[in-house]
Amino acid sequence: MLMVDIIRKKRDGGTLTRQEIEYFINGYVKGEIPDYQVSALMMAIFFNGMNDEETGDLTLAMLDSGEKLDLSSIKGFKVDKHSTGGVGDKTSLVLTPLVASCGVPVAKMSGRGLGHTGGTIDKLESFRGFSTSISNEQFINNVNTVGLSIMGQTKDLAPADKLLYALRDVTATVDNMSLIASSIMSKKLAAGADGIVLDVKSGSGAFMKNDKDAFLLAEKMVAIGRHSGVRTMAVISDMDQPLGHAVGNAIEVREAIDTLRGAGPDDLKELCLTLGSYMVGFARDIPADDARAMLTEALDSGRALDKFAEFVERQGGCRDDVYNPDNLPKASASIDLKAEKDCYVSSIMSEEVGTASLLLGGGRRSKEDVIDLSVGIYLHKKVGDKCKAGERIATVYGNDDAGIAEGFERLKNAYEYSDDPVRTSPLIKGIVD
Amino acid sequence: MLMVDIIRKKRDGGTLTRQEIEYFINGYVKGEIPDYQVSALMMAIFFNGMNDEETGDLTLAMLDSGEKLDLSSIKGFKVDKHSTGGVGDKTSLVLTPLVASCGVPVAKMSGRGLGHTGGTIDKLESFRGFSTSISNEQFINNVNTVGLSIMGQTKDLAPADKLLYALRDVTATVDNMSLIASSIMSKKLAAGADGIVLDVKSGSGAFMKNDKDAFLLAEKMVAIGRHSGVRTMAVISDMDQPLGHAVGNAIEVREAIDTLRGAGPDDLKELCLTLGSYMVGFARDIPADDARAMLTEALDSGRALDKFAEFVERQGGCRDDVYNPDNLPKASASIDLKAEKDCYVSSIMSEEVGTASLLLGGGRRSKEDVIDLSVGIYLHKKVGDKCKAGERIATVYGNDDAGIAEGFERLKNAYEYSDDPVRTSPLIKGIVD
Repeated sequence: MLMVDIIRKKRDGGTLTRQEIEYFINGYVKGEIPDYQVSALMMAIFFNGMNDEETGDLTLAMLDSGEKLDLSSIKGFKVDKHSTGGVGDKTSLVLTPLVASCGVPVAKMSGRGLGHTGGTIDKLESFRGFSTSISNEQFINNVNTVGLSIMGQTKDLAPADKLLYALRDVTATVDNMSLIASSIMSKKLAAGADGIVLDVKSGSGAFMKNDKDAFLLAEKMVAIGRHSGVRTMAVISDMDQPLGHAVGNAIEVREAIDTLRGAGPDDLKELCLTLGSYMVGFARDIPADDARAMLTEALDSGRALDKFAEFVERQGGCRDDVYNPDNLPKASASIDLKAEKDCYVSSIMSEEVGTASLLLGGGRRSKEDVIDLSVGIYLHKKVGDKCKAGERIATVYGNDDAGIAEGFERLKNAYEYSDDPVRTSPLIKGIVD
Repeated sequence: MLMVDIIRKKRDGGTLTRQEIEYFINGYVKGEIPDYQVSALMMAIFFNGMNDEETGDLTLAMLDSGEKLDLSSIKGFKVDKHSTGGVGDKTSLVLTPLVASCGVPVAKMSGRGLGHTGGTIDKLESFRGFSTSISNEQFINNVNTVGLSIMGQTKDLAPADKLLYALRDVTATVDNMSLIASSIMSKKLAAGADGIVLDVKSGSGAFMKNDKDAFLLAEKMVAIGRHSGVRTMAVISDMDQPLGHAVGNAIEVREAIDTLRGAGPDDLKELCLTLGSYMVGFARDIPADDARAMLTEALDSGRALDKFAEFVERQGGCRDDVYNPDNLPKASASIDLKAEKDCYVSSIMSEEVGTASLLLGGGRRSKEDVIDLSVGIYLHKKVGDKCKAGERIATVYGNDDAGIAEGFERLKNAYEYSDDPVRTSPLIKGIVD
């Protein structure tokens, strides 16, 4: 088998066999196939695409390039959840204890963020002493006793994807649905769950800017799940404006705690109940409506919040902070954005809000950056909300004047207004299963 | 400027600027831009093409990556000729002395062959003592005194093309008209002529398998010439069957000498007169018909043959051999292919005839191979010719039994026959200027 023939085949619109895909992935990981042939193949794939069979085979080849987490010693059906990412997305913080409190084991690998805010792990470090640097044994033991554990992603999951992604990033070959889908799914499948619920974001603040692309990506990923024998479904949710009111790290944790108490923003609560009902539905093999009733009861009874406290404590964090979220890091200064006249919010550009968070110090520009967990933004008004002249629209929290000024400018530009009432788009755009 | 942005621009169907093209070629030659980005760009170009402006800019950037031969000390308008290559193509051997004998200086760089037969330089080495390893000064001096010189290609011409071609070869990005055209033209332009006449072959034995592609390539190359301010035109000629009767090295030289004597095959003579009339037309600024009359007179009077003898002698070869071509290397054995019954030749697959020559030892499989100049094939019958049962169709000349047997098998398979008379296709398919 020659790599140049594989490239030519895809260039000419052919379908790659499983053997050809394994040959190139294995050869690439071993350093036997050079970057320049792989990048040419990636560009040919960009133009000619891959069908579901090829995409599935690519995912499995990347999965097989490294270790796979063995969760077999955890009792019950393990469900994982993955979001394609968006601004203000603190869903995992709510969803994992919520689902665990319904008796469904949650063993989740999470990453640190590179972008507007930290990732789930960064956010959780708002609890003093909290750590995700735990061994596989502790991780599994925690799930078997608490019902929930979150650990940092180990290096050895799908190393082929890591290599391939770095190459695609510098050769303009990221934007292909099959390549995006296989990259995400190879890592998810390596994390060893029995079922996967995907939250595919669609809108200006998401990787997928429109519904068509979001549905296409969701379909590709669900097809990969099917190809691999892992139950998979996807919820397509709105990311034209940030999710909830809080954007940052500790500030998002506070909002997640509010939601676990039943007092959070409607959109965040709704998304968590939707995703959660599919996760519990998968695990218990019950209709989503029945699962939703269980989840609602867990929120209302306080069991979900208690589960979160138990989880935080088990991983070294301060249990009290869950019940007294004012103890979490807070910034030293703030400025309010106020309405200049009576109006309605017509749009909030998520990307701009995210950049404001980054400018305040709430995210990383490069891997080495240290995140300021205390800074962030609170969006008092969201799309469709009525504002009276002088009323607070949003608040910027920061620790240095320059960062606050820059963040405030960005935030101001993120908002658009209308004199007339504005129609809002639905949060849940569809389901792919 | 970032290479990834240049790749993305071409990927998305954009037009690259001269600055962007120069940035990537210069960066690539300096080793600052890695292979993997260049191969991704090549694949994007394969899919989205380049317009004439981009193709011209790429050619000039590659030309500027190395030395350019300075022919300014040669008096008069210098015309070069380039063939895209085919089986039995000994045109340069006839054309260069023919044109020189009309007083038009010919300063030609030629290559060794990698393929079915040797290149022009290999063929010329059939003359004992002949050498193309001459200095630039000797080269120019020979042109100024003899009117003709041929030298081997120096390493420093268009090094960017050399790098790029090697990369394209292993990444399935050779087959793009703009890339092929710029590769050929960057080297031609570096050879310093004032005018270029291209012989673009079309047919089963050529790089361009059909007329559409051949005309497209011709148009691209002529556009590049225009872009660079060098007068350029192209003749599209048939390569569905080998040119002339002889395929090999010394055997082709003998046929070239026959043609210079006015006794060569019609197709070879016609092609040389056509190409020559444009070369002389360019140089003298006279109509092609007038130039053709001059060339015919040079053949008929023996001046063209004398010019060839003068050229061979000046570069160390034996002048006598030109007048006694039987002195040139000859193989020790031969087999005839004979007609099994009365028939007409309906086709001769040039590729198969070429492979037969290679199997006999007349070509190189790799750069290190040594060519046997004495072996070859003589095609007594060509497409459309009538054959009587038992009549010779072709003869294979070789020096070892195994090679002869293999070559004979290939040659046999190259011929197809018909019971009915066969229409032949025209030799000259068109002109692009």
